[in-house]
Order: sequence, then C-alpha cells, then structure tokens
Amino acid sequence: MRIAQIAPLFEAVPPKLYGGTERVVSSLTEELVAMGHDVTLFASGDSITAAKLLSPWPRALRLDPDMRDWVSTYAMLMEFVYQRADQFDVLHFHVDYWPNSLFSRQKVPFLTTLHGRLDLKEFEAIYSMFPNAPLISISNNQRTPVPHLGWAQTVYHGMPQYLLTPQKVEKRDYFAFLGRISPEKGIERAIRIAQACGVTLKVAAKVDKADEEYFKAEVEPLLSTGGVEFIGEINDAQKPAFLSGAKALMFAIDWPEPFGLVMIEAMACGCPVIAFKRGSVPEVMDDGVTGFIVDNVEEAIAACGRLHELDRDKVRAQFDKRFTARRMANDYVAVYQRLIDQQQATKAA
Amino acid sequence: MRIAQIAPLFEAVPPKLYGGTERVVSSLTEELVAMGHDVTLFASGDSITAAKLLSPWPRALRLDPDMRDWVSTYAMLMEFVYQRADQFDVLHFHVDYWPNSLFSRQKVPFLTTLHGRLDLKEFEAIYSMFPNAPLISISNNQRTPVPHLGWAQTVYHGMPQYLLTPQKVEKRDYFAFLGRISPEKGIERAIRIAQACGVTLKVAAKVDKADEEYFKAEVEPLLSTGGVEFIGEINDAQKPAFLSGAKALMFAIDWPEPFGLVMIEAMACGCPVIAFKRGSVPEVMDDGVTGFIVDNVEEAIAACGRLHELDRDKVRAQFDKRFTARRMANDYVAVYQRLIDQQQATKAA
Repeated sequence: MRIAQIAPLFEAVPPKLYGGTERVVSSLTEELVAMGHDVTLFASGDSITAAKLLSPWPRALRLDPDMRDWVSTYAMLMEFVYQRADQFDVLHFHVDYWPNSLFSRQKVPFLTTLHGRLDLKEFEAIYSMFPNAPLISISNNQRTPVPHLGWAQTVYHGMPQYLLTPQKVEKRDYFAFLGRISPEKGIERAIRIAQACGVTLKVAAKVDKADEEYFKAEVEPLLSTGGVEFIGEINDAQKPAFLSGAKALMFAIDWPEPFGLVMIEAMACGCPVIAFKRGSVPEVMDDGVTGFIVDNVEEAIAACGRLHELDRDKVRAQFDKRFTARRMANDYVAVYQRLIDQQQATKAA
Repeated sequence: MRIAQIAPLFEAVPPKLYGGTERVVSSLTEELVAMGHDVTLFASGDSITAAKLLSPWPRALRLDPDMRDWVSTYAMLMEFVYQRADQFDVLHFHVDYWPNSLFSRQKVPFLTTLHGRLDLKEFEAIYSMFPNAPLISISNNQRTPVPHLGWAQTVYHGMPQYLLTPQKVEKRDYFAFLGRISPEKGIERAIRIAQACGVTLKVAAKVDKADEEYFKAEVEPLLSTGGVEFIGEINDAQKPAFLSGAKALMFAIDWPEPFGLVMIEAMACGCPVIAFKRGSVPEVMDDGVTGFIVDNVEEAIAACGRLHELDRDKVRAQFDKRFTARRMANDYVAVYQRLIDQQQATKAA
C-alpha cells in the first residue's frame, strides 16, 4: 500500500525529547515500513525515518529561533502534500483540521487522527463543517464533546515492542512521575499520595514555558517538603531503568486525557500505574492487572497498599497484547483498506 | 458586480479602535456599496456594514476571552467562503496566504491584498508556492523582499473622504504622535525631535501587550523628561481636533512600513507629516507639499523649522486627490474587471 503519513512540524519525527504526537507518528511509520508498505513521511527536515522523507520545512519549528509565523508552514505543508497526493493510495494526517477543506475536494482517500482534547467550542465548529471527513479517535472518551463527528474508528496508540523493556533492579523504593509539569497532569496530587505512603516520588518531567509560573508558585514549594526528588526531563534510553525501578507510576491527572502514552510506557517496563479515572484511563488501563484505577487521593493511597497483589510480568504481557506499534499499524491498515474500498465502490457506482 | 470582501477576524469591521486592515476593508466595502455594487462582507459577527454581512464567527477574536485556537476560525472562514463562492463574480481576500491552496482550485476569480510586511523567510516560502495567485501590494516598496510574486497591482489605501476633515483651531502649539507604541514606530525619536524643537509632543497611542516591556523600560522614563503629554488611545471622532491642532505629525518610523494609514489621516486634517524615509513613505508623501521626508533626527529637526512653508489647504487637497476611499475603490474595481475578463478569456480559449 502506498501510504503518506503527514506529521506536525513542531517537533522532529521522532521528537528529540517530549512530543507525543510526533512519537506516535514515528512508531506508526516505522512499523508500516517494517510490514512492507511503501511509506512516505511528510515531516520537518530533521526527522529520521526508514520511510521516504519529504519536508516542506527544514527544521522542527520548536527549535527554529527565526520562526515567526508557524501557520504559514502548515499552509505550505498542505499545498506540498496536495501536489503529490496522487502518488498515494491513502493520506493519513496528524494535523487537526488542516486538511479538511482542501482534501475533501480531491480523490485520494484521507483520514485524520485527532491527537488532542476536543472540548473547545471552536473545535466543535470547525469539525462540524466536515461531517464526512473520516476521523480517528485515540480513545472513545476523546469523542465525548463531539460525538456526532465523522468518526471512523478508535485506534489506541502503540509503541515499538522492544523500545522499552523491564530491567532487572535490586530494589524498588520509589514512585515515578513522568512527563510534563502542569496543573492537569496532577503533580501536586502525586506528591501528596507519595508523602502519605511514606515513599519517595521521583519526578522526571519537563516544565514548559507556559507552566513556569505554575511551577514556581505551586510546585517548587512542595519539592522541599520531603520525599520528592526532581530529576528533570529524561529520554527513551533512561526510561526503562526509571520505570523498572519504580513501585508504580503516579498518573494523577485532572483533565480529559485523550490517551496518555506514559501509561503504556510504564506497562512496557512492567511498572503498574495508579491512574485517576479521567479521559481515556478506563480504556487504557486494566484495573487490577496493569495497575489500579482510582477516583481520588484517598483511593490512590489505598491502592498503593495493594501493589503487591499485581504481577509485573502480567503488566508487561498486557502491553504486548494491546499496545505494540504492530497492533496499532494493523488497526490503521484495516481502516486504510476500508477507505480505499469505499472510494472504489463510489467510483464504480 | 457581485463582490465578496473577506476580512480578518481579529477585529470587527470597522474596528472599535486600532486595526488598520479591518479599517481599510470597511472603507472599501462601504464605498463599493455606495457605488452600486452588490457587496458581501465576510467578517466577525460584530461588524457593521451596509453590505450583506456573513459571519462564520460571532465575535472579533481579539475581544473573545474564550478563544484559544484562532487558526481554527480562519480554517472555518475559508470553508465558509468556499461553499458560497459561486454566488460572486470576484472574491477579494485580506487574510494573507490563507485562500491560496483552496481557491486556486476553483473557478471564481480571487485576489488577495497583502497588508503586512513581507520580510520573513516563511512568507517568501509560502507565497512562492502560488506564482499565479494575484496579489495586491499596498505600496511598491512592500514588494521589495519578494519582487517575483504574482503581483497584479499596487493599490494605495484610501479613507472615506469626509470621515476626517480640517477643524478650526485657535493655535497650534504641539506635535502629534498617533498610533501604537513600539520600537519600530519611533516614539523615542519623535520625543527627541520635539524636545530639540522646544515643542510639546502629544502622544495618542495604545500600548499592545507585546510592547508593554518596551514601554516600561524605554518610553516611560522619557515621558517625565519634559515636553511629552501621553493621552492614550483615541478614536476617529477625536482625531480631527487632535490632528488639526498639531503643527505636524511625527512619523519617525524605523521599519519597512508597508503603507502607514496615519499619514493619510493627518493629510485629511490638513496636518503636515515629518516622515522618515522608510518603506512606503516616498510613495505616500509628496515631499514639500504634504510634509517633509527626512533621513534622520537632524533632518527632522531642520524640517520642523520649515513647516511654515507648507499650505495646510494643499495638504488636504493632496488627500482629496490621492487617498479617498472612492479612488481606492475605483482602482480595485478595475483590477476585479481585469481578472474577470482574463477568466472569461481562459474559459473561451
């Protein structure tokens, strides 16, 4: 199958560090190549892939200090893909509503995976204009604010099967927090839970510019209250040791998380997750197998006392079963094939 | 002629206060209606016009506190116009590169007036993808960074002829600064010139959020050095008295100003302009008639000593001749007709 993957331009594919969407696009692209498909990746020029790379812009926008108008590069990306569209059997976009107007009016089947939250009124307005543009949700819960859109399927994210694996460790004496510091990611609650359990919380996280004020005002004072160790942002090579050594990952979110990659990163390392019941959590987690789903801080503290009931091999087994890049790629290929068949049926009719 | 005007969504048309592009779109729209054309204005729902108003979004974005993703509203605007395009003879866009991909692939002639500076590398990249999309420059100088684009014509801005008129005043004892406080608008130089001349500078200007730091660090200290009176943002009703009472407008810019509406606002009130030779200035100004074109602060100070040589009636007469909305509308209608004729010739061929 001749497949185009169209990635955001903000981070390289794969991203150098943080960057959930670009990471998933990379996993999907590489897996499709491994499966023998003819794949072209449209992404920033500093991306690395076994697919054919086509770039309307040389450098990830987030790292380009001269970039003043990112919108123009997205307009460029759309035109760039459009001019090459007939070389593909299917076009798979990862850039929100950008393709809809233009690609609804050409003949190559296209679909868009929506990677973010959808509860802004302007999103409802723009997506509703295209009831027939096929959309992929990354959890069923993600659809909640806009259930009536042209949803083709939910495809859960996946990761390369052996990118992160369980490591041998001598002892497990801390809880892990991994990702980004922000109110909705629940760092404050994670600290409270760890302190109540008398277990150190190791925080491997970045602080975005937008969250610096929050970090200074709300989080920094907590770091000195004991039992918290801030180790900064970590990369993929550091994650297996970090997650394998943790008693559990604290996923104490307070927002409608559309997927939550960090949960499956933990599972890949056999690390159970204490996950708050928000957004995608009930779909991604298997309660009592890959961790515990909780409703509040009290339940989280109680769940930490039951971690010994879980088998870390079974946590990893659940990852192998549900969240590999191969499973994700197979799901997407099935959707691609369906769209191609529909298109050909329309042509024949 | 059935004409669509497609305005930015950031400010209402006309803007409540500052907002150059929306102001010009309003002047053009109302004048085309007055000339008997069938005009539809695509703009935010709080716009006011004698044309038919169609709005994909109810409120100017700048005034909408809930607006998180302005890009989606522009994507919406494009789709909204596209769905109605065949009701028009010509589509006139004022939203940068937004229409190019989509409207290059339909049959109604369209053009875009570029209202901003064009010296960003990403602008060159996006506009170069559409060598056949007709563009209007608002000065010849504006084209400098990208001379090879599909320029159809330069059309200088205009204003309703009797919106601002010369007022009787008892004495003229100050220089005027009007517009926005920012490094490129030259407020510091204007203050130095006025101080050197021993004339008060009255500053009627807004401070954007982006310029607050600059204002606090560089401008505020100067306000207390004497001879500067800061009166804040003023509206159209206040401008005739403000400009009629001024010895001259200080237009001490330090950037490639693509047009500079404030120059013609001054002319409309018979107020000469001391204008720095940047961007559009040599095209908009008639040196020795509507003011003096200068190269630096010393020349500006010398020019202030020659203001008595100028005749304020002749300043106003130049406005009537060159910068009315009627002249602008006539120029645009000629371009519209040319594009329509070309389109029909293509169809016939």
